Amino acid sequence: MIGFQCYRVDLGDRSYDIRICPGSLDGLGAAIALLLPSAKRCLVVSNAVVAPLYMARVRASLEAAGWQVIALILADGEQSKTLANWSRILDCLMAHKLSRNEPVVALGGGVIGDMAGFAAASYRRGLPLVQVPTTLLSQVDSSVGGKTAVNHPDGKNMIGAFYQPRLVWIDSEVLATLAPRQLRAGLAEVIKYGLIRDGAFFSRLQELMPGLLTLDSAAIAEVIHSSCRHKAEVVMRDECESGERALLNFGHTFGHAIESLAGYGTFLHGEAVAIGMRMATRLSHQMGLIDASYEQRVLEALTVAELPSAVPKFAPEAWLDAMGNDKKNLGSGLRLVLLRAIGDARIVDSVGADAITRLVASYDDPR
Amino acid sequence: MIGFQCYRVDLGDRSYDIRICPGSLDGLGAAIALLLPSAKRCLVVSNAVVAPLYMARVRASLEAAGWQVIALILADGEQSKTLANWSRILDCLMAHKLSRNEPVVALGGGVIGDMAGFAAASYRRGLPLVQVPTTLLSQVDSSVGGKTAVNHPDGKNMIGAFYQPRLVWIDSEVLATLAPRQLRAGLAEVIKYGLIRDGAFFSRLQELMPGLLTLDSAAIAEVIHSSCRHKAEVVMRDECESGERALLNFGHTFGHAIESLAGYGTFLHGEAVAIGMRMATRLSHQMGLIDASYEQRVLEALTVAELPSAVPKFAPEAWLDAMGNDKKNLGSGLRLVLLRAIGDARIVDSVGADAITRLVASYDDPR
Repeated sequence: MIGFQCYRVDLGDRSYDIRICPGSLDGLGAAIALLLPSAKRCLVVSNAVVAPLYMARVRASLEAAGWQVIALILADGEQSKTLANWSRILDCLMAHKLSRNEPVVALGGGVIGDMAGFAAASYRRGLPLVQVPTTLLSQVDSSVGGKTAVNHPDGKNMIGAFYQPRLVWIDSEVLATLAPRQLRAGLAEVIKYGLIRDGAFFSRLQELMPGLLTLDSAAIAEVIHSSCRHKAEVVMRDECESGERALLNFGHTFGHAIESLAGYGTFLHGEAVAIGMRMATRLSHQMGLIDASYEQRVLEALTVAELPSAVPKFAPEAWLDAMGNDKKNLGSGLRLVLLRAIGDARIVDSVGADAITRLVASYDDPR
Repeated sequence: MIGFQCYRVDLGDRSYDIRICPGSLDGLGAAIALLLPSAKRCLVVSNAVVAPLYMARVRASLEAAGWQVIALILADGEQSKTLANWSRILDCLMAHKLSRNEPVVALGGGVIGDMAGFAAASYRRGLPLVQVPTTLLSQVDSSVGGKTAVNHPDGKNMIGAFYQPRLVWIDSEVLATLAPRQLRAGLAEVIKYGLIRDGAFFSRLQELMPGLLTLDSAAIAEVIHSSCRHKAEVVMRDECESGERALLNFGHTFGHAIESLAGYGTFLHGEAVAIGMRMATRLSHQMGLIDASYEQRVLEALTVAELPSAVPKFAPEAWLDAMGNDKKNLGSGLRLVLLRAIGDARIVDSVGADAITRLVASYDDPR
């Protein structure tokens, strides 16, 4: 039997627990009641795919614990992560006049977590936020650490806030209903933790991968816990990404460009990050940090996880333009995360346009 | 001669200076350059009243210090403090692809400071923010402490963030071009500091008031500095209004209701707060905290400052509805700030509807 696991994210007066347990969705209401004893109402924000599967259970759990539940269901998918939908959440909070101590519960994947999180951050300058992630990607990454955002028409996650949740509640059993493609996309971020900070975990993942792809409970529990620990360790040292936290963006500047250039919805975020990690690995070699064999090791890991790795073709200027828009970049040159070993990454400032142009051109070369 | 005054707001890694000096607008560019040595561009957000008066000087000061200046000028007034205008600021930041280290400079009163502040807080999850307040109200209150917001159609300041500026730069000479009505509105917040936490300052204000109304430099400098100190002391103890900071809302729950019920723009914020402080003082008496004479002392102070004090007539249900929407209130009953002496206020929870109904009815009574 897989028991209850808890990891404490220690951020002073913004500290919170990540609780991981299969089947724990039914305990959510009582847990939030313990956390916020003086509140009576909550807003559950979900999407049209997750709500039919889990809203009834979540509502029952909340109501059994005495909560008055308001539900708001938005469209699914990255395309819905807009200021307009964020504004709909705010309108709903306004319509019900929620008070500063009444929580927003984000029930869904990264899109719902980011968007409901930014609404919770903004309404009355901040309501308590509870993350109930239902995708592997959000369970291992986006629900932890307090990054909330919506997309601007000209760039992903460009409008948002650093706003920590009060609780992250992970029921790994809900992955049973997750589309296999979404599960694999989540594995990209898991592989990322291995690549940037834990070589042993990267190796262990190769053993666990068959179990992960078939939702073996023990494998899933191990990977969620290790991933949350990695994410939390980084966030605790650098909450607002003034330094080390940027390492978590490994593959993401390329990934965001791929998502944007291909049109949001073509690639899942995790898929784009997978391709982006491959590109960042080759660039690390081209910039002299590692030898050429590393890209092959990354490719093998992506292949075992059944993730895409073929670099899509766009004009070099399109790559540069899309990457320059990525919010982690400073005024001159690109700030990128590069690999110097499996389990060891570094932030490199001022990567020139020529390096990017050479990189993307190298994928046109059949060698 | 009035020299340069500086007050440090100590909030750990979010600490910043408030610098107060007549004529200091021309030193702004160099000051920001010292603060943010690696940035090259900045966005100055202002309004159609302030920009013709001061944008050229601010631009010249910034350009002389090496800044590339982008300017965005919005309509003046509380009516323009909308999500739509906030979104225009974000669009402008996106169009110029400002980086995370490039600042937003808010040149204007509370509306510009709050709205540009929330845009700075939200774009890429936070850019450096410099407040250059040009009204007395923003110089003594809203530019300090990190409250940023825009209005929702159903409530004032309902959407925003706690986001501290990196610098507050106060040139008290700009008050020379401020409309006298706006100057008086700012005095309401100054009187508030006396009422809630400094009885000696409240008395001193009566002596200073003639000088303040005629913009005597020494009187203005003294009052701005004392007010910023009061504001900063409260904010340092309770940045996100979990307790003591709520004392600063003295008169504001009534004031916000008056602004909303009369239609935004009818009363200036400070005028509505003046009336609200009178009402809160009478309520403090009706709830047994002080004797009846206090309202007269508050009225006298408002009269000397040439502020309105007549309570406008609205239906009791309208008052209750408008006050219930105020974001400082918790689930049950109203949370209000009441007076227990001149210079001493307390937060009272769960003020019932009957108390409010009795209060507003008492102004219909000619006695």
